[in-house]
Amino acid sequence: MEQIVPCLHPNPGWRNSDVEDVFGSVPHSASDMVGKHCILELYDCDVFKLNDEAFLRNTITTAARFAGATLLNLITHRFEPQGVTGLALLAESHISIHTWPESGYAAVDVFTCGVHTMPERACDILRKELFAKQFSLKSFQRETPDALTTELRKPFPSN
Amino acid sequence: MEQIVPCLHPNPGWRNSDVEDVFGSVPHSASDMVGKHCILELYDCDVFKLNDEAFLRNTITTAARFAGATLLNLITHRFEPQGVTGLALLAESHISIHTWPESGYAAVDVFTCGVHTMPERACDILRKELFAKQFSLKSFQRETPDALTTELRKPFPSN
Repeated sequence: MEQIVPCLHPNPGWRNSDVEDVFGSVPHSASDMVGKHCILELYDCDVFKLNDEAFLRNTITTAARFAGATLLNLITHRFEPQGVTGLALLAESHISIHTWPESGYAAVDVFTCGVHTMPERACDILRKELFAKQFSLKSFQRETPDALTTELRKPFPSN
Repeated sequence: MEQIVPCLHPNPGWRNSDVEDVFGSVPHSASDMVGKHCILELYDCDVFKLNDEAFLRNTITTAARFAGATLLNLITHRFEPQGVTGLALLAESHISIHTWPESGYAAVDVFTCGVHTMPERACDILRKELFAKQFSLKSFQRETPDALTTELRKPFPSN
C-alpha cells in the first residue's frame, strides 16, 4: 500500500499556535503513536451548550479540524428530556461525545490512527468550547499491529 | 427525570445463555457500572469479513442487541483499497469498529451507560463473528458524576 500521509490531512501547514494551549502539559505535537485513544471527562460544563445539538455538531467539526483529521461523516441524536450524543467518523478513526446537561457532564473519546493527527487538540477544543470547569484526560496507545505504521488508507471516493 | 430503565431495553427477558460464553472469565451479568468502556483489540481475524461493510453492519447490529442496547443509528465507511469503519449510536452510548484487513486487525470500543447493558457481550459477538484468533479486552469505568446513576433518558421521538 503506497500512500503519502499528507494526502489525508485536510489542512496541511496548520501551526501549533492555531489552537490555544489550555491543557498545559498535554503535548500538542503530532503524535508518533499509530493508534492513540484519548478518554476525556468534562465536568461543570455550560449546560445550554451541552444540550445544543447544532452547537455540538459545529464543535465536533472544529475539533476534528484542529486535530488534523478528516471528517467523513457526523451523526448526532438528541435525547428526551435532554442530552445529546454525537459520533464523528474520521478518516483516522472517530470522535464521540455524550452529554448529560442535567449533570453538566460530557463523556468524550477521541481515537486517531496515523502520525499526522493530534487527538489532544480535539479534546482541547471540546473542553474549551463547552466551558468545562473541571476535566480528566487520559490517553493510551492502542495495541495495534506494528504493520499499521505504514498502512494508512484513503476514504473511498464514492462515499 | 422519571424513567423506567427497562423501557430502553429492546429485548427484556433475554437470558444469559442467548450468547455463547467465549470470553471465559468476562462477566456476562448486567453491569452495575454507570459508564463502562470496553477497549477490544482483535487480531488474526477473517480478512474477508473485516472488509465486508454489509457484514460488519449486521454484526454491529447484532452486537448491540446482545449487549441489551438500543441501536438508534449506524454509519459505516469503506476505505480504499481496504478497511471499514463503523459507528453505532446507541441509546446507551456507542460501539465503534475500525478494521485493517491487510493486518487481520480490528480496533473496537464499546461504551455503555446504564445498569441494564452488558458491553462485554457486544465484544463477545464481534470477536466471535470476525473469527479473531487472538484478542485483548480491557474495560474501565468512566468517571461519571454520581448523579448519572438515576439520570437515564429516552431517545427523542422525532429522530
